[in-house]
Amino acid sequence: MTAYLLTVGDEILIGQITDTNSAWMAQQLNLQGIRIAGKSSVGDVHPSIIEAMDYAWSKADLVLVTGGLGATKDDITKKAIAEYFGVEMVFHDETWKRLQYFFKKLGKTPNEMNKNGCFMPQNAEILTNDRGLAPAMWFEKGGKVMVSMPGVPYEMMHLMTDRVLPRLKKSFPVSPVVHRTLMTAGEGETGLAALLSDFEDALPNNIKLAYLPAFNQVRLRLTATGSDETALNKQIDIEKAKMETIVSKFVYGYDDEPLAKAIGRMLVDKKMTLATAESCTGGYLSAQLTANAGSSAYFKGGVIAYHNDLKTNLLGVQTATLDEHGAVSEATVREMVQGALHATSADIAIAVSGIAGPGGGSATKPVGTIWVAVGNQTHTRVAHLTIDRGRNRNVEYAANVALNLVRVFLLATEKDVILRGTE
Amino acid sequence: MTAYLLTVGDEILIGQITDTNSAWMAQQLNLQGIRIAGKSSVGDVHPSIIEAMDYAWSKADLVLVTGGLGATKDDITKKAIAEYFGVEMVFHDETWKRLQYFFKKLGKTPNEMNKNGCFMPQNAEILTNDRGLAPAMWFEKGGKVMVSMPGVPYEMMHLMTDRVLPRLKKSFPVSPVVHRTLMTAGEGETGLAALLSDFEDALPNNIKLAYLPAFNQVRLRLTATGSDETALNKQIDIEKAKMETIVSKFVYGYDDEPLAKAIGRMLVDKKMTLATAESCTGGYLSAQLTANAGSSAYFKGGVIAYHNDLKTNLLGVQTATLDEHGAVSEATVREMVQGALHATSADIAIAVSGIAGPGGGSATKPVGTIWVAVGNQTHTRVAHLTIDRGRNRNVEYAANVALNLVRVFLLATEKDVILRGTE
Repeated sequence: MTAYLLTVGDEILIGQITDTNSAWMAQQLNLQGIRIAGKSSVGDVHPSIIEAMDYAWSKADLVLVTGGLGATKDDITKKAIAEYFGVEMVFHDETWKRLQYFFKKLGKTPNEMNKNGCFMPQNAEILTNDRGLAPAMWFEKGGKVMVSMPGVPYEMMHLMTDRVLPRLKKSFPVSPVVHRTLMTAGEGETGLAALLSDFEDALPNNIKLAYLPAFNQVRLRLTATGSDETALNKQIDIEKAKMETIVSKFVYGYDDEPLAKAIGRMLVDKKMTLATAESCTGGYLSAQLTANAGSSAYFKGGVIAYHNDLKTNLLGVQTATLDEHGAVSEATVREMVQGALHATSADIAIAVSGIAGPGGGSATKPVGTIWVAVGNQTHTRVAHLTIDRGRNRNVEYAANVALNLVRVFLLATEKDVILRGTE
Repeated sequence: MTAYLLTVGDEILIGQITDTNSAWMAQQLNLQGIRIAGKSSVGDVHPSIIEAMDYAWSKADLVLVTGGLGATKDDITKKAIAEYFGVEMVFHDETWKRLQYFFKKLGKTPNEMNKNGCFMPQNAEILTNDRGLAPAMWFEKGGKVMVSMPGVPYEMMHLMTDRVLPRLKKSFPVSPVVHRTLMTAGEGETGLAALLSDFEDALPNNIKLAYLPAFNQVRLRLTATGSDETALNKQIDIEKAKMETIVSKFVYGYDDEPLAKAIGRMLVDKKMTLATAESCTGGYLSAQLTANAGSSAYFKGGVIAYHNDLKTNLLGVQTATLDEHGAVSEATVREMVQGALHATSADIAIAVSGIAGPGGGSATKPVGTIWVAVGNQTHTRVAHLTIDRGRNRNVEYAANVALNLVRVFLLATEKDVILRGTE
């Protein structure tokens, strides 16, 4: 089964918004074994939409249209679909009732324009939207399907997950596809591929391995296709276990879990708390940790010691250390770790100090020089980065390395590995 | 003149990467007065690329193709273009020389595959890429143009800015288009539109106003078209001045400047420094401030007081205040401001405390309740937010409100407005 993604809206064509929907939808469809034949965007122009629908319809079994629904958009997609399928618009009473209910909850009354928005193409099967006013619409013709959804990501994700994908599975039973994803950190795609080369060669024909690299992290995704889902699950679990053994020291989690979240999980398990002492990352590292709900269970807080005064006054870094080694040095990040532990009473602290750039570099410490340390009261691990990727990328990279260092530190503690100085 | 954007690559169709190139390219082209007729993506499949090129070519005067260039991609786009235009591939000596030079700098030697990558379609005009190995290619036929570029954003942006757009202006002199953008904060699109209603109605026919809303910020963009660029600039500057007068208290900068950067500029002007005391924003606010190069000139640092212990120990918030009013309260953020000023010796401090969610809410303080305060040693301004938009959006919104409050605080100081308590 193949799908084509069509987005409707001037706001995409003038570059006002970045289309993040397509990537998410493509991922979800791929996980169901549905290949994306292509995707395109058109503006809010009736004939262009009709033409784009026709093109999409010719390219795939399933066309997913987002955008161009809702009162302010003048329901341009809805009218185009009605014309494309040659049907009338009819008043949809249930949508009107839901709309009245929503407005009542907000203490408002729907107006004539809102009521007009409840007309739907006659052949549409309406899929209720629990996160907004505009429902999704499902059309079938000649064994093909077109689905139209609002473009708001929050609403689209709900409609895809809870309405469209289950409906698809019911109407078009595809061959079972099962996945297992290992989340890894600390080794690049090439390094992992070298380790997994024999494993990959020995994989059964119906199982494929994909490397999905991100910044200092690689997702390893196994995909198995076949006819018997129970047998497939058994088979893929065996391969997953083999793979995990080979790359075990880089695996931090499963199923798209962010590294910061995995660290939170480890800390909760160990009933330990974490603190940060950030210089060049300027809050970015802590923001990654606190982006996850429930982070207050393990994250105590931290100090952003951007100015050296704060390194001294709030983190107790010695003036002599700063004078002798500089703020960007192993000695300084080690003292920052101890200072953060002392200031916050956390069990573990992370410190980062570096030259994010573009200014501030020197011959001995060029832009991109970054020191990271993770430690408790007795042991510390440090990492030293030296590659300049531009200010924002340097910060992101340093934060990622720091998070992985926490993971390694926690694992080493777990395995009773004796940590000495710089390891 | 119209353009069509075509992206080539399986990585987009499987949702591995989000296409951020298109939005950026669309913006740049719109600024030149070039309208985007549509955009589409195809996988790394030769016949699909040819077909997509043909479709794009039929839709616009200019087709911009990104992706599918470079050794690892097997130069699939290049071959498709050669076939599409019916030309041979010829060895391009200059590209080969540049490639050898790049490799030498890295202490490496190019291999046979690298050399094969230097074959280019015979009719291509080669546009040198200073940020990578694959150049851009420019093709003309029957008054239309197709340009192919690598998909790496950093390389594409350089090629568009320094090669393609100047080349376009030379070959296709379009009518002059001039723009003026005001960056505003603190008022929504609807509120600004109401203020600017008369102004907008009175605008000359050749000048349009666009509202480009982001989170708690709105860009107001005037676009003027005509035949005489000097006259246009004069004309648009008059309208810009009128518009700025009407919405002056919301204007913080020009030309896409981020709010955090504008605040940095204001602080540098006043020779003042800033510190943060973050609870629910967890580092996100500071990360916005430090995302701008040169922020160490005015940002001293701050305390992320996620746990109440840190509010007390590092920021001197009184236990009695926390007990009586709670961590999420006006009284607490006021004490956090004073604590941050004391801990960092900054001239101004920002404090944020709230319930980001999804957990932690109560009947009296539901998720989304956030207090923000900005102050110096004698005066403080506070803001109270009460809308839940989901954890991450709550954090972003709070940070944006906090930044705008700094701006208002600095302006009020400037204008000798007497600040009393909560204003």
